[in-house]
Amino acid sequence: MNKTVNIAIVGLGQIGNFLYNEINKKRKEIKIKTGKNIKIIAISAKNPKKKRKFNINKKIFFKNPIEIIRKKKIDILFEVIGTPDGISKKIVEMCIKKKIHVITPNKALISKHGNKLSKLAEKNKINLEFEASVAGGIPVIRTIKEGLATNTINKVYGILNGTCNYILSEMENTKDNFKNVLKKAQYLGYAEQGNPKLDLNGYDAFAKVRILSSLAFNKKISHAKCLMDGIENIEYKDIEIASQLNFRIKLLGITELIENQLFERVHPCLVKKNSYIGNVNGVMNAVILNGQPIGESILQGEGAGPGPTSSALMSDLLSILRGNIKYPFGISDKERKKPKPYDIRKYLNSLYFRFEVKDKPGVLSLITKQLANYNISVERLVQIPDHKNKTASIVIITHKSSENNAQNCMKLFRSNKYILKKPTLIRLL
Amino acid sequence: MNKTVNIAIVGLGQIGNFLYNEINKKRKEIKIKTGKNIKIIAISAKNPKKKRKFNINKKIFFKNPIEIIRKKKIDILFEVIGTPDGISKKIVEMCIKKKIHVITPNKALISKHGNKLSKLAEKNKINLEFEASVAGGIPVIRTIKEGLATNTINKVYGILNGTCNYILSEMENTKDNFKNVLKKAQYLGYAEQGNPKLDLNGYDAFAKVRILSSLAFNKKISHAKCLMDGIENIEYKDIEIASQLNFRIKLLGITELIENQLFERVHPCLVKKNSYIGNVNGVMNAVILNGQPIGESILQGEGAGPGPTSSALMSDLLSILRGNIKYPFGISDKERKKPKPYDIRKYLNSLYFRFEVKDKPGVLSLITKQLANYNISVERLVQIPDHKNKTASIVIITHKSSENNAQNCMKLFRSNKYILKKPTLIRLL
Repeated sequence: MNKTVNIAIVGLGQIGNFLYNEINKKRKEIKIKTGKNIKIIAISAKNPKKKRKFNINKKIFFKNPIEIIRKKKIDILFEVIGTPDGISKKIVEMCIKKKIHVITPNKALISKHGNKLSKLAEKNKINLEFEASVAGGIPVIRTIKEGLATNTINKVYGILNGTCNYILSEMENTKDNFKNVLKKAQYLGYAEQGNPKLDLNGYDAFAKVRILSSLAFNKKISHAKCLMDGIENIEYKDIEIASQLNFRIKLLGITELIENQLFERVHPCLVKKNSYIGNVNGVMNAVILNGQPIGESILQGEGAGPGPTSSALMSDLLSILRGNIKYPFGISDKERKKPKPYDIRKYLNSLYFRFEVKDKPGVLSLITKQLANYNISVERLVQIPDHKNKTASIVIITHKSSENNAQNCMKLFRSNKYILKKPTLIRLL
Repeated sequence: MNKTVNIAIVGLGQIGNFLYNEINKKRKEIKIKTGKNIKIIAISAKNPKKKRKFNINKKIFFKNPIEIIRKKKIDILFEVIGTPDGISKKIVEMCIKKKIHVITPNKALISKHGNKLSKLAEKNKINLEFEASVAGGIPVIRTIKEGLATNTINKVYGILNGTCNYILSEMENTKDNFKNVLKKAQYLGYAEQGNPKLDLNGYDAFAKVRILSSLAFNKKISHAKCLMDGIENIEYKDIEIASQLNFRIKLLGITELIENQLFERVHPCLVKKNSYIGNVNGVMNAVILNGQPIGESILQGEGAGPGPTSSALMSDLLSILRGNIKYPFGISDKERKKPKPYDIRKYLNSLYFRFEVKDKPGVLSLITKQLANYNISVERLVQIPDHKNKTASIVIITHKSSENNAQNCMKLFRSNKYILKKPTLIRLL
């Protein structure tokens, strides 16, 4: 690499704009740390006139990002648009083929096309870096690839979506319902105004789980169908009852190898109140790794927002400037085998069920009988009557039961006239 | 570097021996990740016949480690002897001058001679790596140098000594005294049999603080005199009273920049029971970094023992094998300025005092008057009488007071006939 390094930033939303400012602010420091003079020579975004926190240099603005790659001599490009396909994919592919290093926080793109893109990057001997795609304020990707390089990791889990963690924490703190707290999260900028669904339904966390699995287990990114459940159906009632039973509800992303089969999932979990993960609240993210010989390793930090995300993007930049050419996923593409998927139906777990029922004799016995038919045995049971409406909430925590039995049993409950709505199912950690 | 890389290990105690076995076990994996064939071609230790957990190859054993450097063609040497001077220093210097990469967990050596050794390493363009010198199971050095590369860090603190954390946790759990719990820690291998002093008096944690400061603030390692206090004088009584006041006692290492002046210290701290750091118990280590734009970043893991330490040594090995030539402290020696020391006497902090006194009228007023003379004002006061011995424990938590006043006031208390022993002073976090 030359002593002067030309940089382009494509996408100037909150993150791209913050990054643009960071790079300009830290040019001297970067020179000291890497010996390189960096220069942003091209930027692009949908709207050049949009109001931004930091001013941009309009002289280097391109309306069409493809033009940058075609016309300018770029060494490193930041792709900060963020679509899983379309223009993001096109730009990244073009860059790699033209031997331009790529840095991106785009988890949707990497989790969907990471296998193909990393193979292409390896072939072209350039860096494809995506530290910011998982938990920006936590350098977890670098930690797995380098800091824990020769550990045998068997499980990675954690709080990977700050929006959901904020909403669940805030519901507990304010005793308010999901809808109102979501509005507050949107107002504060923690949840997207337009379509917050990708955070709430687990999709965002799931993309991160896919990337973490691949890195931790040295496998190709899986595209098998997996267990994904969001927090949209969690009611304050669940949080309250969980609390009485000494639990908190957290949306967790979990990936592990069970008999060398990959088991990935994202769903709300009942975690013990006095556990570490039970005390990571608000917009914080946390990742827990179990490996040998390291034992348990915990990383915690802010998950999103322009600051932490830029921190991760800058660490990728410095890595490239220092000349650390690496395989995007730590090992060569040809060594990354396709993972065998674990049959989730076999999974044994304790479960929390909440049933809203008519307060009639025989309803409880009907439920417990049905559970027994599916080999699901009750560990704890709480019944909370609502005398005014002649209804009751029945909460059951089960002994370990198979996912298959739980799902089949759930289906039957839906067609029972005494059960007023679809029961809530939350898995225990 | 050639495709075949020759390795030597000097020192075959618990860690060296575990590492020897790890390297042999993971040769294939290392080949996949780095493309290099590694081979241990020389080992050395005081006693070739010592009983070790893993068998060593006696054909490559050297009685004198210096012979290895003189006679064999080594690419990378692990220094795992661990003395701050003497043979460890000699070996490391010889290697660097012969352009042999060095990896070491030797915090005593690095904190004492790191400035000189890193300059030498830079001059000879080889790697001097010491990830294992601070909190083995936590890749904190790599995280500061790379993962958080362009953050402006202003404070790093944490639990850096697993022995002390185990003892304090176990005293709380078993209500037993320091002496008995120390014996248990020695029996379990958490504290050294012969001379556990370097762990208990804060020296071990302090060496780590020195290294962290240097990395986090991009300064030379400081050799200024600093605040260092151990846990030898903590009694169960302190833990009990702290608990009643909703605190736990933790030995913390803390380093921060106050008006660009370096303030390093190791001492027991009263931390809130419901804080994150108050819940890191047993032999666990934790490091908390405050930086911009990252915010607060937390890392937790096992701090010592052959497994976590080897994990860190192996991460250094892979870094070298991947060809990541770097400045040992992240930036060039000539950019690392000598830090200005902060005048500790100015430091304002809340304090916990415990006085053991004769149960006589006027003693309490005497103490509070003396405190008032030194501008130390009382926030909370607890008096616990011991009727049998006609004594009492007086515990005072103060508002923020200067370290200077606290120290001067302490001296006077020592010469008071109603105060039965040197008062205990613990700082609040």
